[in-house]
Amino acid sequence: MEFPVTDLSPAAFVDRHIGARRDADIKHMLNAVGYDSVDALASAAVPESIKQDKPLSLGTALTEAETLATLRGLASKNKLRVQMIGQGYYDTITPPVIRRNIVEDPAWYTAYTPYQPEISQGRLEALLNFQTAVADLTGLPIANASLLDQATAVAEAVLLMRRANKNKDAANGRTVLDADLFPQSLSIVKGRAKALGFEVEVADLSKGLPEGPINGIVIQQPGASGLVTDATALIAEAKDRGALVTVAADLLALTLIKSPGEQGADIAVGSAQRFGVPLFYGGPHAAFMSVHKGLERQLPGRLVGVSKDDTGMPAYRLALQTREQHIRREKATSNICTAQALLAIVASMYAVYHGPEGLKAIAQRTHSHARSLATALAGAGVELAHRSFFDTVTAKVPGRAAAIVEKAEKQGVNLRFVDADTVGISCDEATTAEHVAIVAGVFGAGAAGDGVDTHAGTGTGEGFELETAMLRSSQYLTHPVFHSYRSETQMLRYLRRLSDRDLALDRTMIPLGSCTMKLNATVEMESMTWPEFAGIHPFAPDAQTAGWRELISELETDLATITGYDQVSIQPNAGSQGEFAGLLAIRGYHASRGEGQRDICLIPASAHGTNAASAVLAGMKVVVVATASDGTIDHDDLNAKIEQHRENLAAIMITYPSTHGVYDADVRQVCDAVHEAGGQVYIDGANMNALVGLAQPGKFGGDVSHLNLHKTFCIPHGGGGPGVGPVAARAHLAPFMPGDATQWTGEEGQTAIPVSASRFGSAGVLPISWAYVKLMGGEGLTEATKSALLAANYIAKRLDSSFPVLYTGEGGLVAHECILDLRDLTAKTGVTAEDVAKRLIDYGFHAPTLAFPVAGTLMVEPTESEDLGEIDRFIDAMVSIRAEIDQVGTGEFELADSPLRRAPHTAAAVVSTEWDRPYTREQAAFPGKTHHQDKYFAPVGRIDGAGGDRNLICACPPLEAFEEAEAALAH
Amino acid sequence: MEFPVTDLSPAAFVDRHIGARRDADIKHMLNAVGYDSVDALASAAVPESIKQDKPLSLGTALTEAETLATLRGLASKNKLRVQMIGQGYYDTITPPVIRRNIVEDPAWYTAYTPYQPEISQGRLEALLNFQTAVADLTGLPIANASLLDQATAVAEAVLLMRRANKNKDAANGRTVLDADLFPQSLSIVKGRAKALGFEVEVADLSKGLPEGPINGIVIQQPGASGLVTDATALIAEAKDRGALVTVAADLLALTLIKSPGEQGADIAVGSAQRFGVPLFYGGPHAAFMSVHKGLERQLPGRLVGVSKDDTGMPAYRLALQTREQHIRREKATSNICTAQALLAIVASMYAVYHGPEGLKAIAQRTHSHARSLATALAGAGVELAHRSFFDTVTAKVPGRAAAIVEKAEKQGVNLRFVDADTVGISCDEATTAEHVAIVAGVFGAGAAGDGVDTHAGTGTGEGFELETAMLRSSQYLTHPVFHSYRSETQMLRYLRRLSDRDLALDRTMIPLGSCTMKLNATVEMESMTWPEFAGIHPFAPDAQTAGWRELISELETDLATITGYDQVSIQPNAGSQGEFAGLLAIRGYHASRGEGQRDICLIPASAHGTNAASAVLAGMKVVVVATASDGTIDHDDLNAKIEQHRENLAAIMITYPSTHGVYDADVRQVCDAVHEAGGQVYIDGANMNALVGLAQPGKFGGDVSHLNLHKTFCIPHGGGGPGVGPVAARAHLAPFMPGDATQWTGEEGQTAIPVSASRFGSAGVLPISWAYVKLMGGEGLTEATKSALLAANYIAKRLDSSFPVLYTGEGGLVAHECILDLRDLTAKTGVTAEDVAKRLIDYGFHAPTLAFPVAGTLMVEPTESEDLGEIDRFIDAMVSIRAEIDQVGTGEFELADSPLRRAPHTAAAVVSTEWDRPYTREQAAFPGKTHHQDKYFAPVGRIDGAGGDRNLICACPPLEAFEEAEAALAH
Repeated sequence: MEFPVTDLSPAAFVDRHIGARRDADIKHMLNAVGYDSVDALASAAVPESIKQDKPLSLGTALTEAETLATLRGLASKNKLRVQMIGQGYYDTITPPVIRRNIVEDPAWYTAYTPYQPEISQGRLEALLNFQTAVADLTGLPIANASLLDQATAVAEAVLLMRRANKNKDAANGRTVLDADLFPQSLSIVKGRAKALGFEVEVADLSKGLPEGPINGIVIQQPGASGLVTDATALIAEAKDRGALVTVAADLLALTLIKSPGEQGADIAVGSAQRFGVPLFYGGPHAAFMSVHKGLERQLPGRLVGVSKDDTGMPAYRLALQTREQHIRREKATSNICTAQALLAIVASMYAVYHGPEGLKAIAQRTHSHARSLATALAGAGVELAHRSFFDTVTAKVPGRAAAIVEKAEKQGVNLRFVDADTVGISCDEATTAEHVAIVAGVFGAGAAGDGVDTHAGTGTGEGFELETAMLRSSQYLTHPVFHSYRSETQMLRYLRRLSDRDLALDRTMIPLGSCTMKLNATVEMESMTWPEFAGIHPFAPDAQTAGWRELISELETDLATITGYDQVSIQPNAGSQGEFAGLLAIRGYHASRGEGQRDICLIPASAHGTNAASAVLAGMKVVVVATASDGTIDHDDLNAKIEQHRENLAAIMITYPSTHGVYDADVRQVCDAVHEAGGQVYIDGANMNALVGLAQPGKFGGDVSHLNLHKTFCIPHGGGGPGVGPVAARAHLAPFMPGDATQWTGEEGQTAIPVSASRFGSAGVLPISWAYVKLMGGEGLTEATKSALLAANYIAKRLDSSFPVLYTGEGGLVAHECILDLRDLTAKTGVTAEDVAKRLIDYGFHAPTLAFPVAGTLMVEPTESEDLGEIDRFIDAMVSIRAEIDQVGTGEFELADSPLRRAPHTAAAVVSTEWDRPYTREQAAFPGKTHHQDKYFAPVGRIDGAGGDRNLICACPPLEAFEEAEAALAH
Repeated sequence: MEFPVTDLSPAAFVDRHIGARRDADIKHMLNAVGYDSVDALASAAVPESIKQDKPLSLGTALTEAETLATLRGLASKNKLRVQMIGQGYYDTITPPVIRRNIVEDPAWYTAYTPYQPEISQGRLEALLNFQTAVADLTGLPIANASLLDQATAVAEAVLLMRRANKNKDAANGRTVLDADLFPQSLSIVKGRAKALGFEVEVADLSKGLPEGPINGIVIQQPGASGLVTDATALIAEAKDRGALVTVAADLLALTLIKSPGEQGADIAVGSAQRFGVPLFYGGPHAAFMSVHKGLERQLPGRLVGVSKDDTGMPAYRLALQTREQHIRREKATSNICTAQALLAIVASMYAVYHGPEGLKAIAQRTHSHARSLATALAGAGVELAHRSFFDTVTAKVPGRAAAIVEKAEKQGVNLRFVDADTVGISCDEATTAEHVAIVAGVFGAGAAGDGVDTHAGTGTGEGFELETAMLRSSQYLTHPVFHSYRSETQMLRYLRRLSDRDLALDRTMIPLGSCTMKLNATVEMESMTWPEFAGIHPFAPDAQTAGWRELISELETDLATITGYDQVSIQPNAGSQGEFAGLLAIRGYHASRGEGQRDICLIPASAHGTNAASAVLAGMKVVVVATASDGTIDHDDLNAKIEQHRENLAAIMITYPSTHGVYDADVRQVCDAVHEAGGQVYIDGANMNALVGLAQPGKFGGDVSHLNLHKTFCIPHGGGGPGVGPVAARAHLAPFMPGDATQWTGEEGQTAIPVSASRFGSAGVLPISWAYVKLMGGEGLTEATKSALLAANYIAKRLDSSFPVLYTGEGGLVAHECILDLRDLTAKTGVTAEDVAKRLIDYGFHAPTLAFPVAGTLMVEPTESEDLGEIDRFIDAMVSIRAEIDQVGTGEFELADSPLRRAPHTAAAVVSTEWDRPYTREQAAFPGKTHHQDKYFAPVGRIDGAGGDRNLICACPPLEAFEEAEAALAH
């Protein structure tokens, strides 16, 4: 028997990643769009002037099995050790029920940022729990829903103090950082200060405040050296002198010691990593910030608040949305728009699962181990830096530090090499008496049982204790949510219940323009939680991290190949940070050429708000360039602005394809004009999914770009983070790419300003993008791009008669997304784009992007991963909604009582005995072809956003509020 | 600062496993039950005569982190190799999306057997897909929803042939097995035949059928030697002579070769392991059986069928439920009641994901590699057994087999040592050209490129091909379900959609009496899919499996300690197989003492039907002992039966606590009476969850027991399997415990009859039970038992006034479950226990056990894992239902139009515009305190079971059936 030997190679992953089937589906879609092949379509859409001249060369695509095998090989090159380095990163035990049912559960990790609150109640509750835990523990009532890392959180606090301090004597004073901050925090703040040109002083505040006007101070508790000391007096003095005060705090320590709020601080920041989030070689971890009342409108990042739905049921939503799409451009106070939602959720559930007693017990164990160790070391004559500490013991070992650290490493324990004379040892949740004994032994304090109390956590440590003034007596985590889920069964069901309230990619297409919600394949995700990746400390010796660094280096190289740049740094742990890093590189470059005066950044009016915010933070002045009526850059205005600012022109920031979802034909022209005037070109890579394999920003005019690995390169959105925003640049900018925050000191002449606390940013999620590139290969990636183009153009074509497509480029084509213009319909019927977005929930869909980049529109991006069936289901829903709009237009329904305005419909609403609406219950609940068996009911009706902002509540509401609302429904 | 150093040890897992909090909850429950402490309660409930005299000694309980670390240590002692041994077990690639979203997803693995079809539509559809795939591929139209393993499936086929063959010449003839069956299949059949006393002949059927009357024959395609040859003529001849014909087939091969049905076979059996199910060191894997029309009522195991719900919507259900609780006792034809549901679901989804083209491509690759290898070996002068094969090449290497196998092992490849002169090499989905080259090299056929075609799968193999007569031309997997889920996104959503239709432990308590639906903790589950456990071949050399064997040995030892027996074998891969093994041991023991005539097995009338079925299969005669009115054994009847059968008394089988959920006080007396008459005592361990730490069957009278690791020891039910049923025995029965099927030949004098294909049965799930025991320790296990007692007695006490508790033991207490008697209510109102079971779905609950062990009742078992809140929610629901029953009783509702009889209510039903029922929509959908936001709607209404049996459909129905029903709803 002979088989028709057509293709005996294993099934290619590209066919799993791309939704449309190669044969019938593609043909059907091409037919609708009017092209013969995807190549012809892509060729027509992408301007000739920027087309990539040769295919991507990325090696043969791997199968899923080969990818896993290769990842296992890389993982095995990392060495797991007992991590006692500390310095902001601590070993912790992720409860398996949380690992499996959050970190490894697509219902959680494929969810989008909760901008559509009605389908996000689950993760909003989880984030509100996070805020409540942080607020309780820090003693400051308003906490945000996470920041990127502790060091950048300190920097955000410094900026907050600088803009919030209105004291006429202090406001323009310098910022003073205590010398006992983590080195990476000091570096990050200095980098920001350098960009913005304000003064920072690092001082040993245990010796008192320096003279002169001070805008704000930052202290750390426990200090980097481990010291725990009461700062009440210091804080009072600083405030007397008009300064604001930030305390960088440790959440676990706060279960035992007096909170920053109780000591008088205005702001607390820190990392929630040790609340169950793996070390991940540096990230992603959730940082936090909390403030006292009055500062809430200055808070960077996202804030979950409590409001009500249209029936009065308490409902969660993002409050004070001045961020992201809503970010206030050049008036922005921060460029942060990503949060670390998934990690914040893990940390919050860790607090929920352990509760206050459990957390306190963990803290006590940690502290007791540290005391056991201190006792043993002191008993052996080792000098210790402090007698009052929580988890970290600092040993003074003149000239012996390197040898001791090396000896410990050989015995399987990583310690912190502080300097030649100093070793730091941090205990944590995973520390055992055996570890303590090993460390004691390394210092010559005898083996286990010989000077070290080997009974875990029962060390009595005569003379080593926390300062009495620092003992915490106030309560925390008193809300019932922190007392209701102690058994694994309870926790499992709570997690399921919350995620069931939400719509994520595991149930429906999320057609969000500019967000590229594509498949997050399991094979890409699986290695993230392997201990050999997840358990590595960011400051572990390089000899232990060969696998990590090989993976990262390959990813950086592949991304450089894809973008056409010369160098990539994956350090920025969000798109905003990538922008910031790229702009810092431009500034550094100009300065290095004696053109430090170049500080004007041109930004088109259509740009994402973050662009302007990042430019401001990089110390640039934003000049807006007008948009022409066809959505492209207004060339007359561009030329005028260039002329006007020729001497000071630093850069232009453009997004390509533009935020209008179109390949503008003039991009080379724009780049040339800016270059000619001595400016640099920053190409925002947010829309890279329309370029991969077809055109390279590094070749068609860009000097630097950032990418969003959480868009184009398959890192899931995690309900609002983690993101990764690598910066990619041409060779002349390479010396200005981000450096290592633990090494960078800010001395004159140092370039390479770091932007994240750890060298490789959110390393933990990089295997996802690495795997995606390896699985697809150059050909597969290019096919994905073309498929994304086809899907977007298919939707544009099919929906144009119902909802006009606002902008198109060459050949009437869009790129990878399209803007549906509802403004005319709204004018005629009153039905808004928001009504459509909410009504889509009843059809089982997440809404497209609402009101960005143009108010009154919806922007749709299907990505290559959606199959034709799902795309058609979406189109059918939109067409059906258009018919409903027409019913309002003809007066069949009053707008206020239409299925559109009253959307989404909850189960309670459609089951209610009373029903006096002009449409049927079936139309409400099962519109179009909604499947009866698989109906998703929104858990709450339309939420009152403005009301929630007027009456801001950002911590868990009392259970009675829900009970009353439920009782009302029961009638 | 001094902490109150009360307990600084890490949080104990026991507090995560047990639902009730130690303080308030326990006190509240004890109050209701009327005891001061759980010890007092347990002491009152358990008869003095059987109480365990000292606490369980199982070492210190490990924390979750320690457990994972220990498991990692054990895993690292296993050595992963390229597995080319074959012999029924092949490497395969589990698609990651299936691994994560089925095998690692509690929504799938914590589900119960789908006896309540309305909340099981998802897994029933998945199992129907399995049946359809098997039926299509084997060419026989009716397939069951899986069997335990291929060898026992062959045995079941043999038994089926023996009972179905009505041909007067052939019916009493012997069963003929082809010599080219896998050795383990031959052993298992011989073991069954020995027990039942029928004749089996093993013959080389390639030389024709032996003379004389033949009941049935079994052939294997491909043969154990790899041979693929057309059996059409042989089958025709056998059928001419009145024999029935079974073909043991390979599903992957069937994508290329003519099916058993097309060759004329009556029955096909085999393993679906290589459809994506890991090797798991031998199991669990799904076996299958399909038959031609007319044999369906003889089919062992479960059968999913299609029926309709009360609105005419197609709905799935188990058909022909003559099994399990319904099993026909001594008239049973098989004792199988567990299936391998979870694994069958994996295999079905593998077929759905790859589709016919994908499966065929995998088969072609596999075959091409085998041909490449054959070509290389032949080219190097190695003699090959056959020229026509699919995946397995058998090499004749006189005297060199051991050396070759060893050499290959050193190069990382496991081959099959057939005998001193013969080596088998099996290719599979994971085989690469590199593997082929290594193997060729080992045989001296040169390195890669030197005689071996290194291009994967493109081998042209002159002269090696499948017999032309065996080429398959018929179609398979033509149903749309096998063509609709090719992208990972599609598959992910399909899996989510199906699991969302079902209620499993991740959403609600499953209060199933006798089934012990307790927590399946993540930490117990995680290691199951680690490659170092999952990737090991059952016949890998012991040097590669040290970790596995250490784990298994520890588990067997721990189970012996817990049960008070001397030896445990974990080989039986279901409770029924444990029973069978235990009874075989008893028979073997009697025979060894010259008392082979002892074949009477006493079984109380209240026993689980499987008991009798197992006894019949072990060659015993069942004599039923009457039940007294208080639910205990009728002693007069017992004594009479003992007297009557004294000379032939083999055993008594009792369940303890009894199936009535009560600790009978007379158990020692019963045991003594049987022992005195020379019989052995079999104690069914189904209710072991009421004994662990309190009493030991091995000490209070049992000679042998089986356990259900999927009940007491936390292996999840997996939607109907896998189960594990270890057999535990006292020392005198030890020589008769199950042996190794690959070694056992059935020669005279051999004891230790094997009951499963592989030595350690369903090894793959054993880490779950191992971890549970290690995590709990003796004290924790005992606390769990007491907590289970408390929960059951709390429910009994609280519900007694609404639904009388049928049986209680000492002090009016129940054991770990209670029977609620509805017969009086039914007599008065017509409302049945089934109505209550269905109505509970509207409240968000899975029903208790229905009509077992007493018709007209519900049996409730909360287990220790349910928390007080969930238990109270259940009690409230039952009280609320009782009020609804009273509304029927008072005539407020007609029964036929009551919320009870019309339950469950779908979303479509309560949203319908027309509503003419006497109760409100709210009462229908949100009865009691049902949470409005988290409402579970059954996807279908009440299903017509009988109608489905009358019109049996056991493969996927056409999509039109659903579309029509959906369309009807839309009106």
